[in-house]
Amino acid sequence: MTQEYDVIVVGAGHAGCEAAAAAANLGSKVLLITMNMNTIAQMSCNPAMGGVAKGQIVREVDALGGQSGIITDKTMIQFRMLNRSKGPAMWSPRAQSDRMRFAEEWRLTLEGIANVDFWQEAVTGLLVEGDVCVGVRTQLGIEFRSKTVVLTNGTFLNGLIHIGEKNFGGGRAAESKSTGITEQLRDLGFETGRMKTGTPPRVDGRTLDYARMEEQPGDEEPSKFSYLDTPRLAKQRPCYITYTNEKVHDILRTGFEKSPMFQGRIKGLGPRYCPSVEDKINRFADKDRHQIFVEPEGWSTVEVYVNGFSSSLPEDVQYNALRQIAGFENAKMFRPGYAIEYDFFPPTQLHLTLETKPVRNLYFAGQINGTTGYEEAACQGLMAGINAHLRVREQEPFVLRRSEAYIGVLIDDLVNKGTDEPYRMFTSRAEHRILLRQDNADLRLTPLAHKLGLASDERLQRVEQKRQQTADVLEYLNKKAVEPGEINGLLVELGSAPISEKTRAVNLLRRPQIELTDLQRALPELSQYLGTYGAEALEQASIHVKYETYIEKENQQAKRMGELEDVRIVGRLDYKQMPALSHEAREKLLRIQPETIGQASRISGISPADISVLMVYLGK
Amino acid sequence: MTQEYDVIVVGAGHAGCEAAAAAANLGSKVLLITMNMNTIAQMSCNPAMGGVAKGQIVREVDALGGQSGIITDKTMIQFRMLNRSKGPAMWSPRAQSDRMRFAEEWRLTLEGIANVDFWQEAVTGLLVEGDVCVGVRTQLGIEFRSKTVVLTNGTFLNGLIHIGEKNFGGGRAAESKSTGITEQLRDLGFETGRMKTGTPPRVDGRTLDYARMEEQPGDEEPSKFSYLDTPRLAKQRPCYITYTNEKVHDILRTGFEKSPMFQGRIKGLGPRYCPSVEDKINRFADKDRHQIFVEPEGWSTVEVYVNGFSSSLPEDVQYNALRQIAGFENAKMFRPGYAIEYDFFPPTQLHLTLETKPVRNLYFAGQINGTTGYEEAACQGLMAGINAHLRVREQEPFVLRRSEAYIGVLIDDLVNKGTDEPYRMFTSRAEHRILLRQDNADLRLTPLAHKLGLASDERLQRVEQKRQQTADVLEYLNKKAVEPGEINGLLVELGSAPISEKTRAVNLLRRPQIELTDLQRALPELSQYLGTYGAEALEQASIHVKYETYIEKENQQAKRMGELEDVRIVGRLDYKQMPALSHEAREKLLRIQPETIGQASRISGISPADISVLMVYLGK
Ligand SMILES: Cc1cc2nc3c(=O)[nH]c(=O)nc-3n(C[C@H](O)[C@H](O)[C@H](O)COP(=O)(O)OP(=O)(O)OC[C@H]3O[C@@H](n4cnc5c(N)ncnc54)[C@H](O)[C@@H]3O)c2cc1C
Ligand SMILES: Cc1cc2nc3c(=O)[nH]c(=O)nc-3n(C[C@H](O)[C@H](O)[C@H](O)COP(=O)(O)OP(=O)(O)OC[C@H]3O[C@@H](n4cnc5c(N)ncnc54)[C@H](O)[C@@H]3O)c2cc1C
Repeated sequence: MTQEYDVIVVGAGHAGCEAAAAAANLGSKVLLITMNMNTIAQMSCNPAMGGVAKGQIVREVDALGGQSGIITDKTMIQFRMLNRSKGPAMWSPRAQSDRMRFAEEWRLTLEGIANVDFWQEAVTGLLVEGDVCVGVRTQLGIEFRSKTVVLTNGTFLNGLIHIGEKNFGGGRAAESKSTGITEQLRDLGFETGRMKTGTPPRVDGRTLDYARMEEQPGDEEPSKFSYLDTPRLAKQRPCYITYTNEKVHDILRTGFEKSPMFQGRIKGLGPRYCPSVEDKINRFADKDRHQIFVEPEGWSTVEVYVNGFSSSLPEDVQYNALRQIAGFENAKMFRPGYAIEYDFFPPTQLHLTLETKPVRNLYFAGQINGTTGYEEAACQGLMAGINAHLRVREQEPFVLRRSEAYIGVLIDDLVNKGTDEPYRMFTSRAEHRILLRQDNADLRLTPLAHKLGLASDERLQRVEQKRQQTADVLEYLNKKAVEPGEINGLLVELGSAPISEKTRAVNLLRRPQIELTDLQRALPELSQYLGTYGAEALEQASIHVKYETYIEKENQQAKRMGELEDVRIVGRLDYKQMPALSHEAREKLLRIQPETIGQASRISGISPADISVLMVYLGK
Repeated sequence: MTQEYDVIVVGAGHAGCEAAAAAANLGSKVLLITMNMNTIAQMSCNPAMGGVAKGQIVREVDALGGQSGIITDKTMIQFRMLNRSKGPAMWSPRAQSDRMRFAEEWRLTLEGIANVDFWQEAVTGLLVEGDVCVGVRTQLGIEFRSKTVVLTNGTFLNGLIHIGEKNFGGGRAAESKSTGITEQLRDLGFETGRMKTGTPPRVDGRTLDYARMEEQPGDEEPSKFSYLDTPRLAKQRPCYITYTNEKVHDILRTGFEKSPMFQGRIKGLGPRYCPSVEDKINRFADKDRHQIFVEPEGWSTVEVYVNGFSSSLPEDVQYNALRQIAGFENAKMFRPGYAIEYDFFPPTQLHLTLETKPVRNLYFAGQINGTTGYEEAACQGLMAGINAHLRVREQEPFVLRRSEAYIGVLIDDLVNKGTDEPYRMFTSRAEHRILLRQDNADLRLTPLAHKLGLASDERLQRVEQKRQQTADVLEYLNKKAVEPGEINGLLVELGSAPISEKTRAVNLLRRPQIELTDLQRALPELSQYLGTYGAEALEQASIHVKYETYIEKENQQAKRMGELEDVRIVGRLDYKQMPALSHEAREKLLRIQPETIGQASRISGISPADISVLMVYLGK
């Protein structure tokens, strides 16, 4: 009853949705199979996108022609640019979304892509012939055949939910777990592991006393994620901040003896940087309070997400502790927090394309690769979708370098280092982070996506215009000379040394106290000239001037690394025949099979000496 | 961790939502517990409300202060008044809703009621002390206590889904079944049974060829359900009509040997008037085609509901047969149709208040009482919610008579006759149907609801105004004399005999060919006078004039029946001590314990002779 597809995507979470959209938009015939079409792109945990390093990823997804940024823009209820006071490498967009709108918008977006077909059911196994994946089998026993398969099962594989001493199967609250796939892949030689994650209770906003909390409004001039003309927020909903206290901690401690984590019932490792509240009070026993963000779940619903209070303690302990928090004295819960354990596949079993090494034409993306977070999932889905499509067309794979994108860092880390605990992105993971800014993801990536056919001509044009305008502005600033009389008043006012002779605008802008807007304020002619340029180009030029040296240095570094990256080794070396390699290096190289010297150099346990050996063998 | 509630409602389907809203709006503290807060008021089957007899029920629910009408008005994408060409007793409003909007609107409505609290979890048992229900127990073992409990589990109790030879537990596609409650109630002495229902496949609207079907647009001047100022539809989405054919039937027949229904794997009886397509071709073997309504699931989604093609045959048989339907040649399915079997409680175990006889303060509403349909469920929920609240306040119960409302007919039928197959409402079930029209539900019921405190003052005012205006219009029509010269042209034009002398307007309007709008057209003075009255009052007056004799007769009948209804017998008769009763009558009376002579007279197996016996004992 079914046609053969180019790409079958299993699961419609953040990874699956991006994968399906990308492959289909590139021209592949795609079937998206998911357990429940009413939960497409469900936000399992907090109703927010972006944040530090994650926001950069969403911008990159957008620059590449993905959908997450557009959908967030259309459905957000609050926007904040985090870390504005730090350097531009740290600026990180973050949005609260309306949970229902977000899911609905994703579904309608997918329905709007002609090449995406849908099937609602659980996949229970893969069709594998030899070492090639050729489709999937569903719970009803239906076989759907395809040239490639992208698995994005999220937290569903043998999902086990824990609350206090109770546990039961489930992929998410009120949803079934998925069985069969892990078992089959294990038989096919895959290694699998267990991880865990958790979520806080949801509470009834009508029972909170916001007067006892700090209001956290959105930015006064909210920005957004997409480089396209998505709507800008006109009104926003505020979040609120409150704190736990010793009383809260004391009550939580009474539940420790029933904690599935502390008592060892949970075997999987959890996300270190997104700990449960019991974990926090256990690990940081000296801290007498922890911050709680009180986040609305949408424009109109009264449901509220208690960010920072993730817990798998017994529900009455959660409840009693919650009620000791300022503003939560009369709080009612809709449901308790819980932890979930699920199967993942150590990602060292993947190529950089996210294709699995043991089985060809099979791709993994999202949480099943040991990551955590919507953004991490979405960008993997995008890359897997692109690469599955390219495989179908027998074209060169699409891999991003560490110097090109956080996405490159993420996948390179996963494949080369693997991960024992849920991997989330941080700016510190990116050695070239001064290059990987949220403001230039379009400049970095859209041309690549356009070449693939995923970014529209319109997108490319915008990027080229921004690039050109930035160059024009830089040229102007380099030429424009400013007289002392024109500017000294301002300089003094801003605590910067006055000038004694004509000075180029660019040199004034280099001063840390001086922003481009300051120059615009003081210099009518400059202001008039720049007035014809877009805000993004002005910002871009300004960042270039201020961070020129860092950026230059990093570009050099990246270039050197790039050279290593260019030395391809796939299929060219027989590590067994290289006695000069350390034992550990030989073993790791055999297992990971790096595609370039650059990749080899990042495998943990490979020393510079080992790299030299390889270079010699490659005649470099 | 929980307060004591007045009313706990288990399940947030159509019954549960109305129950929670009604009890809370009356002032009870309500806890609504449901498995998944994302599926509140999910339309399990077709995305439509109303229809013949069912539309009348929705109007009654609205007149009583329920929410289903308002929510349908706010979320509908098409409206039609069915049976316009028949008498006004048959006029039946029907709307297609946007499935997602409908569910969301219900959720937001409930969130907007201060007295409704929420808890997301499965209830697995009741707290019963002696023969009194005092709360519920959840899957996590949490005990919530309350003065009354309303159970509305729908199709979830031990739900078993069938597709061809496969079956698996579930309460609805992709949702878990509910266990524990049936078993406990059986232990408490409840009788239980199995029923089944089914749903058609959902298809991808992008793959249909609408040019090969008949378009079925909404009404040109769409009406609506609520008597309040809900919005009127400005644009609508059309449905389409197509037909099965011999080829379709032949293919379906190839699946009969795997049919769970025909092979006896399904034990429960299904809804006779909502048969599966295989049932239709089996029962009506001579019919060479059956009508299919192709209904969009919302404003923007491409998902389409194939009304008339409910099936539990193997999915490939469904698919291949579907593709033989005109317009479906390239159809793709999102998911196959299926049948579901579930537990119900024979409703003869209920009082007319929907309280159970074996356990006090426990109420049942909706599909678990052996009914089918959203409307049937919603109105039971409303009545159970009202009565649970009245019990909490120790006030007189609220029961509607058969002559007052379809709701009265429905509950009276259930309680006195029981049902072996899913019960759905028909106009033919209501002996007083000429009184129970969709146009006068407000006149019939709003005053009662206002007395309870459920209908707002605004509602009552509107009703009183409509009643007064109707009386004014009738008085005017009775007085207004028309000259032959003014009207004979029109009469001849409409094929009605001309008049030879002054005639009262009311007498002209009595003529079947003449509508009030005709008189308005021909008589400027009348037109001007009536112009100041609302459309509803004009319609009401017109119906009164045209159907006066029927209405009068029916009112007499109802009054006579009402007298029997007024003879209460609760606790006054010892049937065992009445040898004059037939054996069957004695047994049934003992079991059902009718509350009035009227109710006793409708119990199947009770003869007029038995009633006479009872009257003697009661000294009448
Ligand atoms: C309880 C909980 C707490 C979390 N807490 C955090 C947190 O604190 N911080 C954080 O960053 N992230 C957290 N997450 C993780 C975040 O939800 C995920 O990272 C993200 O949703 C992963 O996206 P995904 O696309 O990989 O998978 P998911 O969003 O889980 O989507 C998986 C999809 O696959 C479908 N599916 C699964 N199996 C099958 C099958 N066999 N057949 C068909 N369809 C199938 C599912 O129905 C679903 O649509 C949490 C998740 C959960 C469940
Ligand atoms: C497959 C299918 C086909 C149908 N076909 C037709 C048809 O052809 N014609 C027709 O008129 N009607 C049909 N119906 C019936 C229609 O859906 C119901 O009549 C109507 O929805 C009943 O409303 P309800 O409120 O009684 O129950 P439901 O709408 O079923 O709601 C039950 C609610 O209770 C919750 N729940 C159940 N158990 C528990 C528990 N233990 N704890 C907490 N929450 C619980 C559920 O999550 C759900 O929210 C069909 C239903 C199904 C599932």
